[in-house]
Amino acid sequence: MKLTVETLLINTGGSRIAILSEESASQLGVHSSDRIRVKYCKREMIAIANIADFYPHGRIGLYEETAAALGVKEDDTVSVQLAPLPESLFNVRAKLRGERLREKDIITIVKNVVERHLSNAEVAAFLTALNIYGLSASENEALSKAMVATGKTLSFGEGPILDKHSVGGIPGDKTSMVVVPIVAAAGFTIPKTSSRAITSPAGTADRVETLCPVNLSINEIKEVVAKTNGCLVWGGSLELAPADDLFIQVEYPLGIDPMLLPSILSKKKAVGATHVAVDIPTGMAAKIKTRTEAYTLASDFVDLGKRLGLNIQCALTFGDQPLGCGIGPALEAREALTTLMGGGPSDLREKAVSLAGMLLEMVGVENGRAKAEDMLDSGKAEKKMREIIAAQGGNPAVKPDELPVGAKKAEVRSQHTGKVIWLSTEDIVRIAREAGAPREKGAGIVLFAKLGETVHKGSVLFEVYAERSSKLASAIELAEKLSPVALTKKPAEKMVLDQVPEKVSHEKAFMLDR
Amino acid sequence: MKLTVETLLINTGGSRIAILSEESASQLGVHSSDRIRVKYCKREMIAIANIADFYPHGRIGLYEETAAALGVKEDDTVSVQLAPLPESLFNVRAKLRGERLREKDIITIVKNVVERHLSNAEVAAFLTALNIYGLSASENEALSKAMVATGKTLSFGEGPILDKHSVGGIPGDKTSMVVVPIVAAAGFTIPKTSSRAITSPAGTADRVETLCPVNLSINEIKEVVAKTNGCLVWGGSLELAPADDLFIQVEYPLGIDPMLLPSILSKKKAVGATHVAVDIPTGMAAKIKTRTEAYTLASDFVDLGKRLGLNIQCALTFGDQPLGCGIGPALEAREALTTLMGGGPSDLREKAVSLAGMLLEMVGVENGRAKAEDMLDSGKAEKKMREIIAAQGGNPAVKPDELPVGAKKAEVRSQHTGKVIWLSTEDIVRIAREAGAPREKGAGIVLFAKLGETVHKGSVLFEVYAERSSKLASAIELAEKLSPVALTKKPAEKMVLDQVPEKVSHEKAFMLDR
Repeated sequence: MKLTVETLLINTGGSRIAILSEESASQLGVHSSDRIRVKYCKREMIAIANIADFYPHGRIGLYEETAAALGVKEDDTVSVQLAPLPESLFNVRAKLRGERLREKDIITIVKNVVERHLSNAEVAAFLTALNIYGLSASENEALSKAMVATGKTLSFGEGPILDKHSVGGIPGDKTSMVVVPIVAAAGFTIPKTSSRAITSPAGTADRVETLCPVNLSINEIKEVVAKTNGCLVWGGSLELAPADDLFIQVEYPLGIDPMLLPSILSKKKAVGATHVAVDIPTGMAAKIKTRTEAYTLASDFVDLGKRLGLNIQCALTFGDQPLGCGIGPALEAREALTTLMGGGPSDLREKAVSLAGMLLEMVGVENGRAKAEDMLDSGKAEKKMREIIAAQGGNPAVKPDELPVGAKKAEVRSQHTGKVIWLSTEDIVRIAREAGAPREKGAGIVLFAKLGETVHKGSVLFEVYAERSSKLASAIELAEKLSPVALTKKPAEKMVLDQVPEKVSHEKAFMLDR
Repeated sequence: MKLTVETLLINTGGSRIAILSEESASQLGVHSSDRIRVKYCKREMIAIANIADFYPHGRIGLYEETAAALGVKEDDTVSVQLAPLPESLFNVRAKLRGERLREKDIITIVKNVVERHLSNAEVAAFLTALNIYGLSASENEALSKAMVATGKTLSFGEGPILDKHSVGGIPGDKTSMVVVPIVAAAGFTIPKTSSRAITSPAGTADRVETLCPVNLSINEIKEVVAKTNGCLVWGGSLELAPADDLFIQVEYPLGIDPMLLPSILSKKKAVGATHVAVDIPTGMAAKIKTRTEAYTLASDFVDLGKRLGLNIQCALTFGDQPLGCGIGPALEAREALTTLMGGGPSDLREKAVSLAGMLLEMVGVENGRAKAEDMLDSGKAEKKMREIIAAQGGNPAVKPDELPVGAKKAEVRSQHTGKVIWLSTEDIVRIAREAGAPREKGAGIVLFAKLGETVHKGSVLFEVYAERSSKLASAIELAEKLSPVALTKKPAEKMVLDQVPEKVSHEKAFMLDR
């Protein structure tokens, strides 16, 4: 069928969609979500049909990027026919029935996802089925490899390339900002790419951005690493494993994360890492709640690493409360810098030294922890961090208290005396985000009471920082409603969690930040 | 944030989507698939954010229908903020974790689906989880009721309202076209709504449309039923259980059908049915392959019927081959009309008389089968059918061979002598569709060889009809490639179905036609 092009002057950044009238669709035998083959001169492409009630017959609506890909402009005539379903859709259907997929099936799916031949609904169904059935080791391997193969890769030449990753989940975890300069100062290459926060108050990229630019090109990253051994950059625009970015987009509203392993390790493989320390925060404040889950995950990481040629060591870390005291991009960057300068909270120092030590031992350093402590105590790690900041375009002389934090501040005080036995991570995250984090970089929380500490009636539990009074007010209102710090006597007050017929809620906080 | 409206002059018929620039989205703290609240004067609405790379900052793109709903036009200024996630999304997430949903959760989901507050990706995830976990009886009940409550309903006053439904799956099943006039001729009300083919060569609506219009309004249906006791209309535009139509749209590319029971029974409830005969074709040509599956499904139908106040009786019917000989809208309508006139294939007559008899006995008729036979043999059923055709606007005097079938015709002949032991339904469907069915109403297949019959080398296995030579040629080519009729000696030729590492395929033909 010949149709006249109407270009829709927007770029949705989404699937390749073509709009057809009901009449054209019916004549073509096309139903909603069917694929059509659109031909213009010698070019052709596959688009997903979107059937619109009152769209004029005889026309086909193409979004700007779709039209550009085909090389057509307004009022050009294209030839349109029903296309067969993409091969990957049959693979998706097989997974919906619970079948294991072969490597070639997975390659087809990942390729079609990157080419946008699968709709978001089809990708969502695939991810849901993976989430319920789980992935076999072979499927994880094939997914990781296919995601690397369809994206860009970095290469830093000979020698071990070190990396560190946290599966995420505890607020205030600024460990990477301490580990990277320690390892780089010890003479090893550690090109750290990281993500921005999606559901948390700060991702590593958000934190580092208060010190220097993080949105570097691949060539800029290579220069920084050549100069300093390390970097702390945002990985989001580098097109490393772009399929993963598309999967994450679909997973996010669904609150599922079935591809945790291939998602993380494909990015590590894409940056050329050879030795990776994986931090698995385990505890009630974290994504991974129990040791059993953590050990299973750790073992899966190691196995998948072997299949991908990555040397992996996992650390199960204490995840019962936020790390350190600062939560929010600038507040966390302050704390990381202070720690590199010899101060900072003891838990952050302890965790950074342990993980850096583990990583150093993986590449043959004897007593890695002592080496890591030495880098920190000698000031070499701080110096290295300032080199990295300078190389990425920031001010190397910056002092922690020069990093601007929210000018609006309020304290939340305890109404009782007792010991802190529970800090609700989920509530703390909500309050910090309500205050403006991560977008408003100075917003966040500073904790004054942590687990096991005694607080008195009237003493400060935490401070809330915001850049705007309205945000501060609503964050404080939320803090008072949620009351995220539980003291000794509180839990017994409410022994019944819920009642059935009213359903028991097994709500698990969903965190997706990598 | 204030944004200037750009109306996008198309109607996608889809979700309420608003396009934002990356910069606006980042300032609003909005990620792809987040909801935004858009306010204009005193109106407000929730839209799903679509973030576009190069979309101009300061503008918001609204599709025509979305703009109309809000009452804005080009260049108006609207106020936009991040909206909380819809409640139903938390219910969807609970189902993704495998939780049972409460009635109120399901009401919220169905309501939000109809309001288009859930994206297709979210609906797809929900349906996939239902497909894997299955639905409890309470969930089926709540879904059915919620889908009825969010749509229009029909009412035909006092007395029993009879209905008949096939769960589908065998090609050439034109039984409804014989059952409806038999039951109506016996004096009972049977307002039959039906669907068009999606994956098959003909739906009941497609078949009947070769005799008279089927796209009637609710008032027209009432008039037809008042006049004749029955009707045979297309249910697709009546907005009976519109949520179901939206679910089906998403299910179709995924090849899943988790809501079979509530989907069918919500429509029956919406048309006011009190007594429903459900046909479950069982066998290798049907959607339901085994007796075990069929009995389970039948029992679920009866139970759900009780919960919904519907009297249901299921018939497990022979589903090892297509019904009758004609396949394709006009060829099937011819056969149905011939059967009403006393001729036609014996399997069609037998099935129609049995099902009509069962339905008549459900409303107290003694020896329903004899009554049904009487209606058929006395010509009363034919007369009734002609009344219905006239009432719906067709020619009541039409003769079977006056129904136009494809002018292009070719025969496929047997290359061997033997008994027919297998007819591949899936292949027959593909060939009929390749010939142009269901869109080209005269296209299709007439079978000359059915199970157990002896064919000789060179005798006709089936005829293919098409409206265009090109379609006929490609259908014949496909027929020769697929060779859908297996004779006695054939199966032993290929004992190994597949090999693993190459995966064993459990491919099951997916049919979605109701």
